Amino acid sequence: MAANVHPIARNAAPSLEPMVQLVAADLNHVNKVILARMQSEVALIPELAGHLIAGGGKRMRPMLTLACARLLDYPGARHHKLAAAVEFIHTATLLHDDVVDGSGLRRGKRTANIIWGNPASVLVGDFLFSRSFELMVEDGSLKVLKILSRASAIIAEGEVDQLTAQRRVETSEDHYLDIISAKTAALFAAACRISAVVAERDEAVEEALDSYGRNLGIAFQLIDDAIDYSSDSDTMGKGVGDDFRDGKVTLPVILAFARGNEADRRFWREAMEGSRASDADLAHATGLLRSTGAIDDTIARARHYGRRAIDALGPFCGGKAKSALVEAVEFAVSRAY
Amino acid sequence: MAANVHPIARNAAPSLEPMVQLVAADLNHVNKVILARMQSEVALIPELAGHLIAGGGKRMRPMLTLACARLLDYPGARHHKLAAAVEFIHTATLLHDDVVDGSGLRRGKRTANIIWGNPASVLVGDFLFSRSFELMVEDGSLKVLKILSRASAIIAEGEVDQLTAQRRVETSEDHYLDIISAKTAALFAAACRISAVVAERDEAVEEALDSYGRNLGIAFQLIDDAIDYSSDSDTMGKGVGDDFRDGKVTLPVILAFARGNEADRRFWREAMEGSRASDADLAHATGLLRSTGAIDDTIARARHYGRRAIDALGPFCGGKAKSALVEAVEFAVSRAY
Repeated sequence: MAANVHPIARNAAPSLEPMVQLVAADLNHVNKVILARMQSEVALIPELAGHLIAGGGKRMRPMLTLACARLLDYPGARHHKLAAAVEFIHTATLLHDDVVDGSGLRRGKRTANIIWGNPASVLVGDFLFSRSFELMVEDGSLKVLKILSRASAIIAEGEVDQLTAQRRVETSEDHYLDIISAKTAALFAAACRISAVVAERDEAVEEALDSYGRNLGIAFQLIDDAIDYSSDSDTMGKGVGDDFRDGKVTLPVILAFARGNEADRRFWREAMEGSRASDADLAHATGLLRSTGAIDDTIARARHYGRRAIDALGPFCGGKAKSALVEAVEFAVSRAY
Repeated sequence: MAANVHPIARNAAPSLEPMVQLVAADLNHVNKVILARMQSEVALIPELAGHLIAGGGKRMRPMLTLACARLLDYPGARHHKLAAAVEFIHTATLLHDDVVDGSGLRRGKRTANIIWGNPASVLVGDFLFSRSFELMVEDGSLKVLKILSRASAIIAEGEVDQLTAQRRVETSEDHYLDIISAKTAALFAAACRISAVVAERDEAVEEALDSYGRNLGIAFQLIDDAIDYSSDSDTMGKGVGDDFRDGKVTLPVILAFARGNEADRRFWREAMEGSRASDADLAHATGLLRSTGAIDDTIARARHYGRRAIDALGPFCGGKAKSALVEAVEFAVSRAY
């Protein structure tokens, strides 16, 4: 598929491995903080949180905090607690997302809301969110608290915005980019930015890392959107066509709708409104997405943001950390192949 | 009903009016902060939040912050933003509570989850919660951030604990008190305590106000529990017997179960498990609650905590603020009559 789109890197199979290795020792510390701080005398809390936290997540966001700190040669350990706080915010939003979307499967496992019910997922999400702020308070940086409380508010705004846009196939590409900038990219940006704060670097460094994280986050989300229509549930860890069946308007649909004829547009409208959710409908949708080039161009858009992420690292000296951060972007945008 | 339980005060009808008047000017400022900071470009956020925030809440918690600050002769304005933060946390938990309980009515109005759906309620709750932390960060006191992030985690723990205890009629009085100390009293305590922080008073003052708020919060919740079985939906703003129909084990039920015979206990077990939820069942339950003295004794327990709240104010000089805080307790425990 899509042989006309060239990967950014020459490397045939970019991977997260260099970043994983770069931060392995630090990530061990972060995992200890996560494990220690998700405990509670209320047994259901560690049980439910553990299902998601121990359940095969890539720890992408805390890894970004750690890798950016390495890029800046930060010698301390403050970022361990803060990376755990970032992961708690992410986990809280996942728990709430699954309730909001009524999802049944995440990372190939049954979701917490299916196993323990929506009420438990909502409340344990609240707990993890509160706990993340406790961790930040222990660290004591008002600047970090400001960055992450702002990011959290933006994430929630983005989620509500997406809820409003849901099933509205007329959502514009601009509006959709606003949504994913908020709901996905804001936490990527914050995760990277806080490393500059703990390393006590200037505003320009903060902004560069923020830009790296933000653009990577957008690229990441767009590739996820493409994968939902082009992968199988084994690689994806969620069902193919979930977005389609949920009436979730993503960039592939926005492009295919814009490029379609009247019949196509009627189909997309009906599909997003929920009256076209069969396997045959999904197959028809996938056909339209391919024939209009919507999947390829979603991936091309993702690569654009990926390139911007890499260019944001321009001011920093080369080395293992920078290479790992660059390859993380290449990995992110290569996942759809 | 319950002529054998004497009110704490001689005043026939204690009211919140003295506290309302004491803090009226300050509360105006708080309301302005609340209104300004619940705004968002995503229109659904102020729409949904406004429904609850403008919808007839008593602003009990922010009023406590303001009244305690008056008690301490705090001359500044920092507490306006912080009282708004407290109200945002409270509103976020209400939004999530209504989703968790599947409630349809609050303060006599349809709940947000009924009007806009559970997803919107979950996400707008998250937004308000994040916004509350942004307000605290703007204030800049790590001590306040610590108090309120800790309280938020404790509230969530209490809510999950209650979820676990739900429908378990064997819940002990001790366990139930732990639950309401966490889910209700922790925020009352924090709301009062932070006034001592902004007024830069010592730990003993912080602890006294924390104790006042905590005991008032417990009293408040216990009276709410009693009212659910003894009031009408007009005064209460929610349906009578909601707790009963939801299988919510509260102190009246715990006492009636402990004091009942085998048949009574079987009834309570079936009722809390949800197989006895008719109006006739509710009438039978109310009969058992009265005959075992469970309602009266729940009110007596509330009065015990009310007295402790008032005694916690012992170290403070008399005056309008202290009188208002004392009468707020008397009002809280008098509501069941």
